[in-house]
Amino acid sequence: MYSCPSNSKVWSHLPPPIFIKDHCFPSKYIMATSRFFMPPSASTWNKSKVSLQRVNITSNAIQKTVRFSVINCSLKINLHAQPALNVAGRLVKGGLVFQQDVSVRSFEIDSEYKMSTKAIMNYLQEASLNYAKKLGLTIDTCFGITPGMRKMDLVWVFRGMHIEVDRYPCWGEVVQILHWTCASGRTGVRFDWTINYINTGETLVRASCLAVMMNKNTRKTCKLPEEVKDEIKAYLRVDVEPIVEVFRYSCPQIEAMDHIKTGLTPGWNDLDVNYHVNNAKYLDWILESTPDSIRDRHELWKINFEYRKECLKEDVIRSLSRVVPNNEKNRGIEVDHVLRLESGHQVLRARTVWRTNSHSCRGINSMKTIF
Amino acid sequence: MYSCPSNSKVWSHLPPPIFIKDHCFPSKYIMATSRFFMPPSASTWNKSKVSLQRVNITSNAIQKTVRFSVINCSLKINLHAQPALNVAGRLVKGGLVFQQDVSVRSFEIDSEYKMSTKAIMNYLQEASLNYAKKLGLTIDTCFGITPGMRKMDLVWVFRGMHIEVDRYPCWGEVVQILHWTCASGRTGVRFDWTINYINTGETLVRASCLAVMMNKNTRKTCKLPEEVKDEIKAYLRVDVEPIVEVFRYSCPQIEAMDHIKTGLTPGWNDLDVNYHVNNAKYLDWILESTPDSIRDRHELWKINFEYRKECLKEDVIRSLSRVVPNNEKNRGIEVDHVLRLESGHQVLRARTVWRTNSHSCRGINSMKTIF
Repeated sequence: MYSCPSNSKVWSHLPPPIFIKDHCFPSKYIMATSRFFMPPSASTWNKSKVSLQRVNITSNAIQKTVRFSVINCSLKINLHAQPALNVAGRLVKGGLVFQQDVSVRSFEIDSEYKMSTKAIMNYLQEASLNYAKKLGLTIDTCFGITPGMRKMDLVWVFRGMHIEVDRYPCWGEVVQILHWTCASGRTGVRFDWTINYINTGETLVRASCLAVMMNKNTRKTCKLPEEVKDEIKAYLRVDVEPIVEVFRYSCPQIEAMDHIKTGLTPGWNDLDVNYHVNNAKYLDWILESTPDSIRDRHELWKINFEYRKECLKEDVIRSLSRVVPNNEKNRGIEVDHVLRLESGHQVLRARTVWRTNSHSCRGINSMKTIF
Repeated sequence: MYSCPSNSKVWSHLPPPIFIKDHCFPSKYIMATSRFFMPPSASTWNKSKVSLQRVNITSNAIQKTVRFSVINCSLKINLHAQPALNVAGRLVKGGLVFQQDVSVRSFEIDSEYKMSTKAIMNYLQEASLNYAKKLGLTIDTCFGITPGMRKMDLVWVFRGMHIEVDRYPCWGEVVQILHWTCASGRTGVRFDWTINYINTGETLVRASCLAVMMNKNTRKTCKLPEEVKDEIKAYLRVDVEPIVEVFRYSCPQIEAMDHIKTGLTPGWNDLDVNYHVNNAKYLDWILESTPDSIRDRHELWKINFEYRKECLKEDVIRSLSRVVPNNEKNRGIEVDHVLRLESGHQVLRARTVWRTNSHSCRGINSMKTIF
């Protein structure tokens, strides 16, 4: 009844994210992974020339496999509908939420083929900047600067960044970033993000960051001016809890830090448009003094960054780390970090929490791929 | 006749890449830049509820501006159709060419808001790997390794990379990568790429790279085995000239190199899945010893990389550069580079050619944006 495809037909009207391409499986089954298309609730799927019926679902830690039998097929087909990804992003919920799709690239993954935490941080920033652009709040490419901020020589600076990763996306997977902002006391704005697996909506990453205003001449932070508040208040949500629970920790003791790497310097490609070190670069430096035994056999689960001072091209950084004594196994391995300039000034204080590698993406594509 | 939008309607059936969003321009004109949608040949554009007529076209080095008057509009509209980007890529020309769309991200740009050369190199690699995946040549995520290569413990290594950039894309712009492979003598395969501006087809970047086989146990390169040739020959074009003209240069004289930066080390995020330094990282190190006067006031025009030795996490790199004496102004400023290990072994030889900054993307979005 079903025959191996010999010609191709793209049905662009199929609803995204359905994505099927048959690869002449030897059995009568078409196999598909949830990574590519599966609306898991559907038990049948009908399109004019082909009907599929779900046979069973098996799943493991990495993926869900759904088998269909072809119950009616009158056409030799090779059908696929690519998800219409929204890579530029768009406003949803009346502009209160920004939504952007991201496909994980080969140069954004680690040795386990999982998206790196640094790449995740980069995309959080990207979503914020695109949100401001979409809202029409930025008058130029000055990275989220509103007309009011421009008049007062103000820029945004990140104060604290909290990230919690449930599962790292794999190379080639498509995820959706949701981003919104909230008023945070009188001084700042909180940025919240989730990164969701596009096909199931499963939340993979949650992040929350406090951003404040800094005068770019005096380099001092200040309260959110009324004029700027007026510009952005329509898009500030109120009474919304942070999407990630901030874990508190005591101030790390510098003198107890026993893993040290010195002489770290920013490269030209680590600088942003204002010639400051990109906020995600700090993670690189933290990894340099993280003990091998932790970095090699574990994955980053939670991050708590407290940005203390901006960092410029000519700065030389000393990275210090210390594993926090802790007997509670399910809390993960906690590590304290400090990044300092040679002068002694602190650039960053951080705590990271690590857990045993939850999964690898190695081999996830080793089955005959569906797309 | 035309009124400012108060409600929204997305017409998804508009043909990509048409992309219009009206922003209540004070005049009767809708203004659009060629960056977003313009089919420059069209003088009128009609869709059921709105008709536009082109009034005039002005252009400068950066962009073309097309003005329309609204000649008929019976609906309050905010219409836009996003280009259906193909971020996962697809095969065209019977599998002989791979095509992938890329949107330039905020963390991939330099201080002029232009895509960095390093980001371009990363996307070249990404296109190659996705091409192999799409062809079904890779049996797992081993970065382009075919079943035959796997059996013989072979991996791909880049030998020489040549890149020529006519214009750097700006943040937010969408470009299309085209990629194909060619037989190159008896030993290797040549990878060719162009990066084109998606709306006009204008070629912005051309790149060509020689890839050879290396035994991953002996670390020695070898001829392309017949078995592997059989696997890939259907996708190897023959008698096709390299897309970029390889400029020859004499072997750089180490002792004459007068700009030196020592102590450069790879970070954890610079490693690929095989724990080798990513091929684009070498560019970072080259920039470190490039004289400030060149790097700050010029842009990379051409690159000729000759990879000599792989580089691992624990290696310490010395970067050496020298401006080549040259009186021919329109040839650009030529700079020779060598990257060496502390042991003296050469990791990379290169020549770069720089020209005065052709344009900046700063301010390109300062006009009221259309999207």
